[in-house]
Amino acid sequence: MYTVDLNCDLGESFGNYVCGMDDQILPLITSANVACGFHASDPLTMEKTVESARNSHVSVGAHPGFPDLVGFGRRNMSIPAPEITALVEYQIGALLAFCRAKDVPLCHVKPHGALYNMAAKDALIADAICRGIAAVDDQLILLAPAHSELIRSARKCGLRAAREVFADRAYEEDGSLVPRSKPGSMITDENEAIRRVIQMVEKGTVEAITGKEIEVEADSICVHGDSPSALSFVRQIRRALKENGIQIVPLYELAKGGKDHE
Amino acid sequence: MYTVDLNCDLGESFGNYVCGMDDQILPLITSANVACGFHASDPLTMEKTVESARNSHVSVGAHPGFPDLVGFGRRNMSIPAPEITALVEYQIGALLAFCRAKDVPLCHVKPHGALYNMAAKDALIADAICRGIAAVDDQLILLAPAHSELIRSARKCGLRAAREVFADRAYEEDGSLVPRSKPGSMITDENEAIRRVIQMVEKGTVEAITGKEIEVEADSICVHGDSPSALSFVRQIRRALKENGIQIVPLYELAKGGKDHE
Amino acid sequence: MYTVDLNCDLGESFGNYVCGMDDQILPLITSANVACGFHASDPLTMEKTVESARNSHVSVGAHPGFPDLVGFGRRNMSIPAPEITALVEYQIGALLAFCRAKDVPLCHVKPHGALYNMAAKDALIADAICRGIAAVDDQLILLAPAHSELIRSARKCGLRAAREVFADRAYEEDGSLVPRSKPGSMITDENEAIRRVIQMVEKGTVEAITGKEIEVEADSICVHGDSPSALSFVRQIRRALKENGIQIVPLYELAKGGKDHE
Amino acid sequence: MYTVDLNCDLGESFGNYVCGMDDQILPLITSANVACGFHASDPLTMEKTVESARNSHVSVGAHPGFPDLVGFGRRNMSIPAPEITALVEYQIGALLAFCRAKDVPLCHVKPHGALYNMAAKDALIADAICRGIAAVDDQLILLAPAHSELIRSARKCGLRAAREVFADRAYEEDGSLVPRSKPGSMITDENEAIRRVIQMVEKGTVEAITGKEIEVEADSICVHGDSPSALSFVRQIRRALKENGIQIVPLYELAKGGKDHE
Repeated sequence: MYTVDLNCDLGESFGNYVCGMDDQILPLITSANVACGFHASDPLTMEKTVESARNSHVSVGAHPGFPDLVGFGRRNMSIPAPEITALVEYQIGALLAFCRAKDVPLCHVKPHGALYNMAAKDALIADAICRGIAAVDDQLILLAPAHSELIRSARKCGLRAAREVFADRAYEEDGSLVPRSKPGSMITDENEAIRRVIQMVEKGTVEAITGKEIEVEADSICVHGDSPSALSFVRQIRRALKENGIQIVPLYELAKGGKDHE
Repeated sequence: MYTVDLNCDLGESFGNYVCGMDDQILPLITSANVACGFHASDPLTMEKTVESARNSHVSVGAHPGFPDLVGFGRRNMSIPAPEITALVEYQIGALLAFCRAKDVPLCHVKPHGALYNMAAKDALIADAICRGIAAVDDQLILLAPAHSELIRSARKCGLRAAREVFADRAYEEDGSLVPRSKPGSMITDENEAIRRVIQMVEKGTVEAITGKEIEVEADSICVHGDSPSALSFVRQIRRALKENGIQIVPLYELAKGGKDHE
Repeated sequence: MYTVDLNCDLGESFGNYVCGMDDQILPLITSANVACGFHASDPLTMEKTVESARNSHVSVGAHPGFPDLVGFGRRNMSIPAPEITALVEYQIGALLAFCRAKDVPLCHVKPHGALYNMAAKDALIADAICRGIAAVDDQLILLAPAHSELIRSARKCGLRAAREVFADRAYEEDGSLVPRSKPGSMITDENEAIRRVIQMVEKGTVEAITGKEIEVEADSICVHGDSPSALSFVRQIRRALKENGIQIVPLYELAKGGKDHE
Repeated sequence: MYTVDLNCDLGESFGNYVCGMDDQILPLITSANVACGFHASDPLTMEKTVESARNSHVSVGAHPGFPDLVGFGRRNMSIPAPEITALVEYQIGALLAFCRAKDVPLCHVKPHGALYNMAAKDALIADAICRGIAAVDDQLILLAPAHSELIRSARKCGLRAAREVFADRAYEEDGSLVPRSKPGSMITDENEAIRRVIQMVEKGTVEAITGKEIEVEADSICVHGDSPSALSFVRQIRRALKENGIQIVPLYELAKGGKDHE
């Protein structure tokens, strides 16, 4: 039987500022990427988010980002590799404290924003991240785009990796995402998006923007929970997955199973 | 045989800014209170400090403070108890990551600056801190002033506590430190300071500023490493302790031993 | 003819985080207190807010706060007076830059949150703030609670001051606000709130929580724009003011006029 | 008679952290680039630095940088142009407040670190900076490397610009600095460095790293004040300038004079 995880970025509120619809998205997903205070969140928000995830039986992962609160971690920063390793370790450790306090296992790590995008293409940054993850806990699963330097680095560092796909994004022939600035980068037809997701999960393939069919393995689907329409789209994806007999399971279940994870 | 720990605040540099003489003080102490990024330090500095402490066989503790970098965590802030718990957990977790990465046990927690001073007198803040420590790891030792609310809270939370004394500070009759603003708050005569330290370790007593002899148990002596004269004073304290047959041991050795820790 | 200003805190968004309904409240008010980046806001938000205020013909003031983004400047901090002066100057200057860039006069300063509340009762803090305002521009108008140390300090420093009142808050006999923690602190009946506002503007008196009638001069009414119900309440206040023949004018018009400002 | 300004980065301390030897360098320079709180400094440090500069009759300029305290503003950040404009305006305004408070004119702006280096080569960033400067005060002088996009942008924006040279750095044939990573990037022989400075001031030329003589106009020489050897080198430069009959004058004197500023 086919299985797939549904992951979503969570806990992105900060102090007085509310961001996202965490309570509504939690019942719909299996894995939460919890912000760690550098690009978003604060200690109290992290504690509450871990508790909410536990109450919804959602698996918890760390979502470390660049130290850029005003830019929400979305701006490229040229940070030396040893410092990237250290800031990944720091953020994982911070979240680990709340997992301990709430008696929840910390299951995975997914880099955030510009750190994620830079590491997908830059082996030095990918290695710096994976070294940090492995140094804190080599049982953590890296969640990263298929065909990325992150997946390759995880293998080098002895980490398990799960490959995530995007329902609403077009792919280049090399398996990378089409940049948002290019026409056709977004899959705006929801039925088309869902058809692609099913194909990625079942066949491990998708049609690239060029028309060529390429390999894109899908261990996890990245979804969004920041608007009513986003929530509605996640519900449609869930329904379609179930109708196709695909089981929705958290990352750690995937990692346990026989599926060949890179 | 009498035993005592020598603790010092370490790893207080921040990015480009250097603070303290960590390399020089490390060979002289047995426990390091490592700043965690809120009042001082940054991820890379924390990683290097934990590594240096390990190389010097110095026991590592977390030194969580208020989120006030420009004030170095020395300014009172009215933060609600649940948020204090969360920020203590966050900072302990962050340091724990580096301890794991460097294969060093995390042994103790000593609150920093205004957080330390407020918690010493305020049971609600002391409880908020101790709850956070216990939630992350109930084997951690709290390092706090004798006769403080922190020591009482640790007992309530099932934490071991070590009582620290100050060589260069005068005490009130209730065992609290004489505020720096009052005349006579500092013990400026080094010989007198050392005589008092020996008495606190051997007899558990000291002469208060009023002249009355009071009980002040000394599990650990707080020393400073931020100037050549501070280093010289630490060397004198070490010499005097040894001449009096007092063994200098890290906190975890104390905690193992039969000494009655509050 | 009676006149009064309507002021509201604006520009409290931060980076990716949206806060407040600035576009909706702007047509309803005459003075905007613009956050300056310490408790809320960022440079780009400040620039856009000043531009929006100009386009709505709303008078611009600086709203300096404590350096506590995660606490939204609402937590007491024990900051020495010279540093308070400097952080007030810094924030006024930062906003002044955007006023210059958008060719808008900077008219007033209203301290934010904990800084406002502490200064209302503490002459040293009030003096530190007013010294900072006067040092940057002695033509700036201080907006502060009637009967506060801030109003007294402004007079000492040669600053004009405007006294603000709250429609939805009860008053103690000494003219200070009843703390939110006390029963009866909020005026929940909107008709009653509006009746009180009219009385404060026309007669300069209000009924204290004890029942005694006290003097409370109203140069400006503080309103909120963070929810649809808040906006609706502001519309009711505006209607009531007009029905009573009270003119709604910005602070600088008040300051020009013959009204006796403390 | 030849004239030249000597400029130095100042006021880079932060809270408890001391950086630089400001008191020693002030008597040796004519223009101070004062950090504005984003990459270094804090409001109180800024106020004290402006006061010290005034007491030493040193001209004051703003030194805006990226919002990256832990990286000291030295790391490239991909910030959109409108936000760069806004953060330059914000920082200039903040310093302007202290200039007003201390009755000192604000004379120039020199971008800091990565912002300076990126803008030197990127016209969009250079324009974003110059637009911000001109929006706050079009009488401010931009201090920037000769042959840079910054100088070109200043001209477009109607700003006066002063060209700075480096005594201890080698130049490429196009007038840009040889990157520190390349061999020969630093001029380590102090006599050679001084000979080059004199030639740049008197003849407006220097020998590039290739051996070719290129044009490099020198309105200002950038010096450092962060170590005793740096101070000693500045003293040597001053002596050599005087021996060669070159007058050391602040930027605003240069701008007044007939010298052809780009």
